[in-house]
Amino acid sequence: MRIAQIAPLTEAVPPTLYGGTERVISWLTEELVDMGHDVTLFASGDSVTRARLEAVWPRALRLDGRVRDGNALHMMMIEQVYRRAHEFDVLHFHLDYYPFSLMSRQPTPFITTLHGRLDLPEHQPLFQTFDTPALVSISDAQRQPIARANWARTIHHGLPPTLVQPLPAQPAYLAFLGRIAPEKRADRAIRIAQACKLPLKIAAKVDAVDQEYFEAEIEPMLAWPGVEFIGEIGDADKSAFLSGAAALLVPIDWPEPFGLVMIEAMAAGTPVIAYRQGSVSEVVEDGVTGFIVQDEEQAVQAVARLGELSRPAIRSRFLARFSVRRMAEQYVELYREMLEGAPRDPQQLDGACGSMLNVA
Amino acid sequence: MRIAQIAPLTEAVPPTLYGGTERVISWLTEELVDMGHDVTLFASGDSVTRARLEAVWPRALRLDGRVRDGNALHMMMIEQVYRRAHEFDVLHFHLDYYPFSLMSRQPTPFITTLHGRLDLPEHQPLFQTFDTPALVSISDAQRQPIARANWARTIHHGLPPTLVQPLPAQPAYLAFLGRIAPEKRADRAIRIAQACKLPLKIAAKVDAVDQEYFEAEIEPMLAWPGVEFIGEIGDADKSAFLSGAAALLVPIDWPEPFGLVMIEAMAAGTPVIAYRQGSVSEVVEDGVTGFIVQDEEQAVQAVARLGELSRPAIRSRFLARFSVRRMAEQYVELYREMLEGAPRDPQQLDGACGSMLNVA
Repeated sequence: MRIAQIAPLTEAVPPTLYGGTERVISWLTEELVDMGHDVTLFASGDSVTRARLEAVWPRALRLDGRVRDGNALHMMMIEQVYRRAHEFDVLHFHLDYYPFSLMSRQPTPFITTLHGRLDLPEHQPLFQTFDTPALVSISDAQRQPIARANWARTIHHGLPPTLVQPLPAQPAYLAFLGRIAPEKRADRAIRIAQACKLPLKIAAKVDAVDQEYFEAEIEPMLAWPGVEFIGEIGDADKSAFLSGAAALLVPIDWPEPFGLVMIEAMAAGTPVIAYRQGSVSEVVEDGVTGFIVQDEEQAVQAVARLGELSRPAIRSRFLARFSVRRMAEQYVELYREMLEGAPRDPQQLDGACGSMLNVA
Repeated sequence: MRIAQIAPLTEAVPPTLYGGTERVISWLTEELVDMGHDVTLFASGDSVTRARLEAVWPRALRLDGRVRDGNALHMMMIEQVYRRAHEFDVLHFHLDYYPFSLMSRQPTPFITTLHGRLDLPEHQPLFQTFDTPALVSISDAQRQPIARANWARTIHHGLPPTLVQPLPAQPAYLAFLGRIAPEKRADRAIRIAQACKLPLKIAAKVDAVDQEYFEAEIEPMLAWPGVEFIGEIGDADKSAFLSGAAALLVPIDWPEPFGLVMIEAMAAGTPVIAYRQGSVSEVVEDGVTGFIVQDEEQAVQAVARLGELSRPAIRSRFLARFSVRRMAEQYVELYREMLEGAPRDPQQLDGACGSMLNVA
């Protein structure tokens, strides 16, 4: 199948630093190549892929200080994809709502994976207006605020099985992984570890927008006994970091759309103790791959029950449910459905063209 | 003529506070109504107009803290305009590049007035890709970085003649009006006034992004003798502020696309002493409505020559060159040209529809 993946230009694919969306696009793209598809990736020129790379701008915008208005380049990219749409069987966008208007006026099937939260006030009128483009949610929970949008599938993210793997280790600490941000609640993780009298290792980045929060709320707690802040880590360090952890704490306080860290932990065989928010109850199997809790007291009780869980079984559940191959196969199935359902007759297309035909 | 004006949702039309683009859209819209046209204004719901208001979102986004991603609403607005485009003879957009892709695929003529600077690196590939939509520049100078884009006209801004008027006064100070920002160089204005031994009154706002610059560079100079900082002023105060000024100082250090303050001063009969940058040599008639200078020494010399200029003559030149009626008439002339040149045959339309017809 001739597939176009259209990625944000904000980060390279894969990203040189943090960037969940671009990591997932990279894994999907490479897996589709492995499956024998003819894949073209529209992305920044510093992306690395075995697909055909269409470099819309030489460098990821987050690292290119010269560009003030990245949206100008995203609108240009969508126009370029439109002009070449006939070269592809299916177009897969990762650019939120930006392609909806234009791509609805051309015949190549297109889908959009929504990677972010959808509970802001602008989302209601937005998806009422754009009620025909086919959407993929990354969890069922993500859909809730706009349940009546045109959902085609929920497709959970998947990882390459070799990305994070169990290493021999004696689990000796609790782990926190990702970003320090108000909605991630590292403070809860610290208190839970204290109550359990276990060390806590925090591997996390602090974005510029969260620096003030970090200094005011989290930094003072880093001096508590047993707490160790090791900064941001890359994929290469995650197998060791997670294999050494008795559990990953995910005490979130927001509607997490997916939460890649949870499946990274499972890939290492590490149990996940997560608050029941957003995608958590779809990702964590309570009593099998971890425990789902409601507050700090329950989290502490869950730590006491970690002995009930089998780390090899967690790795097995990861392989069965969250491999990149499963994700790619689900997308290919959707692409095929879109292709079979694609209009062969311009009359069936959105009103756009119809009204143009009446001009003469 | 059935005319749609499509404004940013960022500020109301007219804006409750600062907002050059939305002020110009408001003046143009009301003047077109006065000229007997059937005008529809797509804008935020707190806009005030005698045209038909299509409120795309209830409040100006700058004042609506709930909305995190205003672009979602702008993309939705463009889709809504597209669906109703057949109701209008011409569409006039003030949304930068956002409408280009979609509006190129429908038959109602559309123009875009570009209100900002065009010298950033993203502008080169952007206007190479979008080389067919008709563009209006607000000065010839504004075009320079992308001289080969599809320019239809330069149309200088115009003001309602009653907005700012000469009041009886004995001009007793030099004036600085607008924003405190690095490119506006209030520091130069302060030094020029000092060298002339004249008081300087600064009527200006300080944006959040410029607060640090203000505190570091400008605030210490406000204590200099004769310098008075009176904060932001509205249109109601400008006649008195400018009538009392011997000259308006515009010592800019960037490619100013237009510079409304210059014609506001002329409307009061007040001479303008401006640095030769961007639009200045198109707006100021050297030796008639003010003086064009290159440095602080020349600015000081220009102040000494203010007696050569006639304030009634400056007001006359304002009325002849920068009235809102002149601006509106130029736009109507362009709308008519677009209408006469509009394709009646879908074959002439952009490839978009052609390729759709080949699908069957």
